[in-house]
Amino acid sequence: MQTLLQLSLLLALTFCHLTFASDPASLQDFCVADRNNQACKNPATVQAKDFSFTGLHIPGNTRNAIGSAVTAATVTQIPGLNTLGISMVRIDLAPWGINPPHTHPRATEILTVIEGSLEVGFVTSNPDNRLISKILQKGDVFVFPIGLIHYQRNVGNGNVVAIAALSSQNPGVITIANSIFGSKPDISADILAKAFQVDKSIVQQIQWRF
Amino acid sequence: MQTLLQLSLLLALTFCHLTFASDPASLQDFCVADRNNQACKNPATVQAKDFSFTGLHIPGNTRNAIGSAVTAATVTQIPGLNTLGISMVRIDLAPWGINPPHTHPRATEILTVIEGSLEVGFVTSNPDNRLISKILQKGDVFVFPIGLIHYQRNVGNGNVVAIAALSSQNPGVITIANSIFGSKPDISADILAKAFQVDKSIVQQIQWRF
Amino acid sequence: MQTLLQLSLLLALTFCHLTFASDPASLQDFCVADRNNQACKNPATVQAKDFSFTGLHIPGNTRNAIGSAVTAATVTQIPGLNTLGISMVRIDLAPWGINPPHTHPRATEILTVIEGSLEVGFVTSNPDNRLISKILQKGDVFVFPIGLIHYQRNVGNGNVVAIAALSSQNPGVITIANSIFGSKPDISADILAKAFQVDKSIVQQIQWRF
Amino acid sequence: MQTLLQLSLLLALTFCHLTFASDPASLQDFCVADRNNQACKNPATVQAKDFSFTGLHIPGNTRNAIGSAVTAATVTQIPGLNTLGISMVRIDLAPWGINPPHTHPRATEILTVIEGSLEVGFVTSNPDNRLISKILQKGDVFVFPIGLIHYQRNVGNGNVVAIAALSSQNPGVITIANSIFGSKPDISADILAKAFQVDKSIVQQIQWRF
Amino acid sequence: MQTLLQLSLLLALTFCHLTFASDPASLQDFCVADRNNQACKNPATVQAKDFSFTGLHIPGNTRNAIGSAVTAATVTQIPGLNTLGISMVRIDLAPWGINPPHTHPRATEILTVIEGSLEVGFVTSNPDNRLISKILQKGDVFVFPIGLIHYQRNVGNGNVVAIAALSSQNPGVITIANSIFGSKPDISADILAKAFQVDKSIVQQIQWRF
Amino acid sequence: MQTLLQLSLLLALTFCHLTFASDPASLQDFCVADRNNQACKNPATVQAKDFSFTGLHIPGNTRNAIGSAVTAATVTQIPGLNTLGISMVRIDLAPWGINPPHTHPRATEILTVIEGSLEVGFVTSNPDNRLISKILQKGDVFVFPIGLIHYQRNVGNGNVVAIAALSSQNPGVITIANSIFGSKPDISADILAKAFQVDKSIVQQIQWRF
Repeated sequence: MQTLLQLSLLLALTFCHLTFASDPASLQDFCVADRNNQACKNPATVQAKDFSFTGLHIPGNTRNAIGSAVTAATVTQIPGLNTLGISMVRIDLAPWGINPPHTHPRATEILTVIEGSLEVGFVTSNPDNRLISKILQKGDVFVFPIGLIHYQRNVGNGNVVAIAALSSQNPGVITIANSIFGSKPDISADILAKAFQVDKSIVQQIQWRF
Repeated sequence: MQTLLQLSLLLALTFCHLTFASDPASLQDFCVADRNNQACKNPATVQAKDFSFTGLHIPGNTRNAIGSAVTAATVTQIPGLNTLGISMVRIDLAPWGINPPHTHPRATEILTVIEGSLEVGFVTSNPDNRLISKILQKGDVFVFPIGLIHYQRNVGNGNVVAIAALSSQNPGVITIANSIFGSKPDISADILAKAFQVDKSIVQQIQWRF
Repeated sequence: MQTLLQLSLLLALTFCHLTFASDPASLQDFCVADRNNQACKNPATVQAKDFSFTGLHIPGNTRNAIGSAVTAATVTQIPGLNTLGISMVRIDLAPWGINPPHTHPRATEILTVIEGSLEVGFVTSNPDNRLISKILQKGDVFVFPIGLIHYQRNVGNGNVVAIAALSSQNPGVITIANSIFGSKPDISADILAKAFQVDKSIVQQIQWRF
Repeated sequence: MQTLLQLSLLLALTFCHLTFASDPASLQDFCVADRNNQACKNPATVQAKDFSFTGLHIPGNTRNAIGSAVTAATVTQIPGLNTLGISMVRIDLAPWGINPPHTHPRATEILTVIEGSLEVGFVTSNPDNRLISKILQKGDVFVFPIGLIHYQRNVGNGNVVAIAALSSQNPGVITIANSIFGSKPDISADILAKAFQVDKSIVQQIQWRF
Repeated sequence: MQTLLQLSLLLALTFCHLTFASDPASLQDFCVADRNNQACKNPATVQAKDFSFTGLHIPGNTRNAIGSAVTAATVTQIPGLNTLGISMVRIDLAPWGINPPHTHPRATEILTVIEGSLEVGFVTSNPDNRLISKILQKGDVFVFPIGLIHYQRNVGNGNVVAIAALSSQNPGVITIANSIFGSKPDISADILAKAFQVDKSIVQQIQWRF
Repeated sequence: MQTLLQLSLLLALTFCHLTFASDPASLQDFCVADRNNQACKNPATVQAKDFSFTGLHIPGNTRNAIGSAVTAATVTQIPGLNTLGISMVRIDLAPWGINPPHTHPRATEILTVIEGSLEVGFVTSNPDNRLISKILQKGDVFVFPIGLIHYQRNVGNGNVVAIAALSSQNPGVITIANSIFGSKPDISADILAKAFQVDKSIVQQIQWRF
């Protein structure tokens, strides 16, 4: 089963890397990504399913260390999004679960809470590093500007469900902890010890967990 | 009351027209639109509320001729969206209500159904004019490429609630019937009679309704 | 002969759809679209004819229901236009002929009248739907902003000839009547009856003509 | 104190008209440049004349050293072109007149001959420096890619009239001879002598004429 | 004196935040940022100094916790860079000094080593988080793609001097440690403990240092 | 026959790496240009060397007619620069050597002097043609706006070394003298004589040298 998953991920990566180079203004009505080929699908063979996806009503599995899950509908799931500069995700958070600090290198995010109470925040760039945060209730909307580090936390006792949209067909995610402490290979512990002003042993301890 | 509404609309138009000229890559973390001024707000005075909006949980009033309502969270409601190239809306449709054929001149739309059964469709440009349509259920996602005419229809007996995002801070809406038959002043009935290949009297009858 | 033409059109469409994905800033002096291949032609084999087209002096055939014809010089005719973001057309209108309401989803249009008297107009988006129109004489220039519905009508007794340029190599055309009442398959008559506030029988009558 | 504030606000507004800095995707239907102010005109006060210009039927005066004249319809003449990325010009050439080698730093040009026989050419960038040229007749169309040096020459005994469009509201013109030999102040004659591999005296002779 | 400096910095910030909204294609030859005003300087008053900066030959002061210093030449120092999409910096590192993990939300960086031995690395986004790193010698060039976390470390016994350019007039810097552990106000220690999978006490200890 | 096909395929592929047609916002972390193929390299096979180049410390050979040399690190040398919108060069000038008047059709340039005294200048577009020039010393930085004609001259008795960055992965160079007097085939001497207001014999003499 897992091998299958890995295989399909590998295949996805193999084809994805071929296809998409930009989010520019379209030159045609659409350019449905053709998996066997690095160009737009012949418009005559395009179908409604190329523009659709099923499953944002299904709760993600939040039984993990951080208590959250993200279900994506990007160009990987919807080939018709190719060149159109937008995508959508569902975010589930168990009580007190977090979507840990991360950035999207290619997109601004706009989020609305469908259910629950959600603390959200982003930090401005140097030199201010201001944290701009808010607790959202059902029906509230919040914006995370492109490239800034942000997080979400369920601050209620029920589950949180949120729908977010991102201004790229393939926004990218950089989870800070994974990128810094879980890269393959590791960033030298000396560098991280100096950067975070902690003992090298603490850095290694964190790296060991990722 | 209505005077107040008109006044605030007028004010909104007066200030909106001053501020926004493009959806470009940001030059700063953000550029919160300053209502008294055509530039970015001083970042030091920016607050979380500049990036948020309350109310997408409230059903729109669908007691109208078409049985639908759209609640918008664009740069008009969220000044922090300025230059960030995205916005969000809630769409409500009463049973068999429609969101009539329209285009967004500046945005692709991605939509997910929160509740109900929704027929969606868009028509490709000349010369094919293919209708690409689908009936969506709860959790389904669909994409309407930028500039193409599209519609939605509630095909169930319950209400439909959908959340959609658009790839512009100010996507614009052109409702075809209103633009063609309800412009101020009217497009000459002769032109429309020829364009739609109907009697001028039918054109005038439709114009009279808009 | 006609079969050959259809075949070549089919081929053209088959290859064209492969080739063009955007109107971005060029990365090279030019990128002449290569019909056999989805990339730029080898610059060493590029010739002057790749950048040219013959025939804008030939009047289009206006003996049709609307009394107008458009002759295009877009990337389909001029492969050298690929990635350069512009194209040109000639518009002919018989006396009282119209170029019916339409939009270009990917381009602003700028037009000058070479001969005759031409009424032009475009309608702004919701909620205003203002018709901005003017009667142009020889030598007058007019602009139709991107994505807005617009039309032209010959309001003189002689022919009208106009030259227009569009801000995309492939601007696209959506003729409203054809897109709304002539799509394949039809948009449900119920939807159009509600949208245009007319009897379903009138909708079906119009659909039947397209 | 408050007077000072008002004054500075006034000054800010006074410089506004200089502001427009780009040809981006529009954020509104249009953004008519307001001469007294750095923003879009209030849409409610926009008129058809903001989108139009009169005079492209009037021959330019070609009684000058090069035998040509260009009549422009850019954002300077048509404020409604602001942010829309296109403009138009009329080019007149007396018999054997030239539009001397020049570049447009911000636009591709597409040109059609209305009358006469016109030699056109552009030169590719280093290292090839290929001249791609052609003699156009009435109705022919030719493309000059953005940033490349190009020229036109009337090669017939009658006048030439051409209409060209450019992919920027403000394409800019750099006439090579004027920029190189006629700058204010002069580029040092030593530099030009070395660059063009001629005697300094010849450089000074040319500079003296510009 | 220092008060004056602080005041002018404050003023600079006050006006800077007003001015720049994007890195788009220019509409003019240049648009020199005018400090007293949110528009382009009158081109007639522009001078060579608006396009220049002095001081990249002066070593930065690396006597700090991380042993490095960055001297910037962005639009803040060179108003003529406004709208032109590029900037330059000098980076100094004492032996074993680091430029700690950070991202530029709006720019790709290209760097060349003028002196010394420099380890450089960036980490790809989820799910791979691959560290791509290399030890550079004098004359080597390296690229850090936009938005990705990257760092530099002097791995020699002498000083390192590097010159880097960034693809934005105002690239922005997000130093990960400062953004995550040094934001004002703090991100809740609970969130960071969960994100980094460490004890809350360690998080607080790190936060206390920033 | 088949060999021919294979050969042309090979040639096509050889030029494909030239293919990437824009500098847009990335859709992925990076898109390393794949030499055998017109798409991004599979990210799993990407290596640090795809993002690096060696040799900017090596002086270029300035023993030529103009006394200068440029060593480039663009997408041709660094495939990882593909779609990232930046590149770097080293410029060497012998005493009184010049980098003759030229433009970059696709990039702004920012330059810093590593060694020596360097006169730099650019000329604004019509109608002003102002020369904006300055003598730079070690550590000075200067900006040449996109598309404008500019030059550099060593005005000292030692060598000049400068590092410059350009806002495109493939900025292009148009050396004015070569483009105007050295194109293949020649621009007609009549045209150049009229453009530069000199005798045809002088034009031919210059052409003969290029």
